Amino acid sequence: MDQRWISFTTDYGLDDGFVAACHGVIARLAPEARVIDVTHLVPPGDVRRGAHVLAQTVPSLPRGVHLAVVDPGVGTQRRPIAIEAADGGFLVGPDNGLLVPAAEALGGIRRAVHLTDRAWFAPVVSRTFHGRDIFAPVAARLALGADLASAGSAVADPVRLPPPHLRRLPDGVTAEVLTVDRFGNLQLAAPADTVPGPGAVTVDGRAATAGGTFGDAAPGGLVVFTDSAGYLAVAVNGGSAAALLDTRAGDLVTIRARHDAGGVRY
Amino acid sequence: MDQRWISFTTDYGLDDGFVAACHGVIARLAPEARVIDVTHLVPPGDVRRGAHVLAQTVPSLPRGVHLAVVDPGVGTQRRPIAIEAADGGFLVGPDNGLLVPAAEALGGIRRAVHLTDRAWFAPVVSRTFHGRDIFAPVAARLALGADLASAGSAVADPVRLPPPHLRRLPDGVTAEVLTVDRFGNLQLAAPADTVPGPGAVTVDGRAATAGGTFGDAAPGGLVVFTDSAGYLAVAVNGGSAAALLDTRAGDLVTIRARHDAGGVRY
Amino acid sequence: MDQRWISFTTDYGLDDGFVAACHGVIARLAPEARVIDVTHLVPPGDVRRGAHVLAQTVPSLPRGVHLAVVDPGVGTQRRPIAIEAADGGFLVGPDNGLLVPAAEALGGIRRAVHLTDRAWFAPVVSRTFHGRDIFAPVAARLALGADLASAGSAVADPVRLPPPHLRRLPDGVTAEVLTVDRFGNLQLAAPADTVPGPGAVTVDGRAATAGGTFGDAAPGGLVVFTDSAGYLAVAVNGGSAAALLDTRAGDLVTIRARHDAGGVRY
Repeated sequence: MDQRWISFTTDYGLDDGFVAACHGVIARLAPEARVIDVTHLVPPGDVRRGAHVLAQTVPSLPRGVHLAVVDPGVGTQRRPIAIEAADGGFLVGPDNGLLVPAAEALGGIRRAVHLTDRAWFAPVVSRTFHGRDIFAPVAARLALGADLASAGSAVADPVRLPPPHLRRLPDGVTAEVLTVDRFGNLQLAAPADTVPGPGAVTVDGRAATAGGTFGDAAPGGLVVFTDSAGYLAVAVNGGSAAALLDTRAGDLVTIRARHDAGGVRY
Repeated sequence: MDQRWISFTTDYGLDDGFVAACHGVIARLAPEARVIDVTHLVPPGDVRRGAHVLAQTVPSLPRGVHLAVVDPGVGTQRRPIAIEAADGGFLVGPDNGLLVPAAEALGGIRRAVHLTDRAWFAPVVSRTFHGRDIFAPVAARLALGADLASAGSAVADPVRLPPPHLRRLPDGVTAEVLTVDRFGNLQLAAPADTVPGPGAVTVDGRAATAGGTFGDAAPGGLVVFTDSAGYLAVAVNGGSAAALLDTRAGDLVTIRARHDAGGVRY
Repeated sequence: MDQRWISFTTDYGLDDGFVAACHGVIARLAPEARVIDVTHLVPPGDVRRGAHVLAQTVPSLPRGVHLAVVDPGVGTQRRPIAIEAADGGFLVGPDNGLLVPAAEALGGIRRAVHLTDRAWFAPVVSRTFHGRDIFAPVAARLALGADLASAGSAVADPVRLPPPHLRRLPDGVTAEVLTVDRFGNLQLAAPADTVPGPGAVTVDGRAATAGGTFGDAAPGGLVVFTDSAGYLAVAVNGGSAAALLDTRAGDLVTIRARHDAGGVRY
């Protein structure tokens, strides 16, 4: 078995049997495969969020097949695809931008294939549940070592999402909030070097500390740091930055050097 | 090991350790068994919903043991049972109607047994956690190949839930909403042949399209289709049918041929 | 492989890829390990709740490594530790009180080690995701049979949480609510022998029945019983005790013998 590990990311939720049906399909075709669920709580149809959580998680996963289904266009003309990444692993899902950032996090796209060979699919393919009928069977067959080239024709141009907003300023950065985690921490679409070094900064005009972890700010204070995925992030020590700043994914946040570091601006 | 796979469905929720305790009991008794969680978010005590999600999911699962616990009568006189289905798999849980639809989805009931032999249970059986103390141990022993006949006495008449509401009309159908999924799609207790073919229909008087998938209606439009489990379903292309129609599980929905297909009725 | 089983408890939630990243780290280091998720929905930073759910669940789990991360002090001076329990299993997580109750549920602490040897960690350790970078790698290495003594220096005094409130009364008990489960059942920080035997009691002045299971009260009635973990518990037959009594975790509840058992007091 070449690719024993399959990761699984969807917007199916946990209330229904959709996730289990896909697990079942994999278990039937590739009983030795081991599945790691990334999340099934991507907001319904939110391709951007699905792409982001997958790209951020794959570097920690074992090499294998990454099955991802956030697919508002299921049953329409959007293509089902599989991508072989530079690390030798695969990504399987709809060609709507969901898979490309994860492929890049794995070193880039080695080849992409439009899945057209029905022998790779379930015997009957519904029009509304391609996770079960197309993508899970393809992931299982790749886990068994099947040759991707036989699954369809080459795709030169998989769909890419527009990049998130990022603008460098002379003394800081304005960047889109990529995600808000359960703790209310904001992850920004900005690399670490866009903030003006450790010390006093402002976040949307509020005083903050550029530090290394939550405890570098006083309790209740704002801290700007490089998060565990390498992104610039904003947190409140012992609290929620999302609540304090009334901010959600997709909003813009501006971080600047604090010129009057002796005082506090609001 | 005859039945390597165990599926697991409950209303235990994901906040407590109840699900893990049952996984632990299985791991101790049958360490080679592999468990697929179907859902643990059945609304508390909602036997009908639990029965439905299980019946709909088992056709996609590998043959094995299906452990299901939605058990408002735990600790009372309701019987613990196990059912052998026609496919050779087993269902284990309370005798309250939860298991029978899944058994039927697996080809019917071959035999049913009232679980009475305490040698199959945990050494000490609590009065409030039969999932851990009775059902998980029985599922693990069946996975190990134990003979169900030795677990208790035959049951001729497992409890059955009343069927959901379904009435065929001259030009359509009135049917109960079985489930509303995370996307707001309505699944009706009606087979596909109850709708008057592809084309213009009404759903509770609103204009809709009988098609094959979400994209067969204009964005925001209602579409009636056969879902991935073979049921009649109602969706909004890019939206929520449940929100648009203010409908939830258990409500009735009427679908009719649209006689004035040139216009739109509300 | 000495300790094949790893249990996993966090406050990471299920919306992000944090849990999967830790699964991935374990899969890379110890691919034969099997992971049982206890819960990842501990309220953010609620060490007391995390400790309680873990302690209550471990007796049902196979012997192995129990990885637990509820860690509001991540990145500060709090120590990362591992504890060997009297049953031969291990607990891995922050030294903030999270692990000790589970160790006691497994027979007590055999030894505790402050994790200082960076060879046990990920090559790069972030300041905000020690679950992925410190605790999961240590859990995986213990699962592979590594010698805990080599991971750091002995800890004589792991941090302990203050005990929950419990006061025995001449005719009953006042005790803190440890947890409210999904069904609205209250679990109290009191052993079973603190209630005055089967029969009529009061719960915060309301008439209740001391019995064995939910059905020992009339529908809608309050019942006091010993729950599946051995704690005193309060439920409503077919309803929610938490809703009826407007009670949540951390509140105090008083149960007394009912002196006027012929009537009902409110």
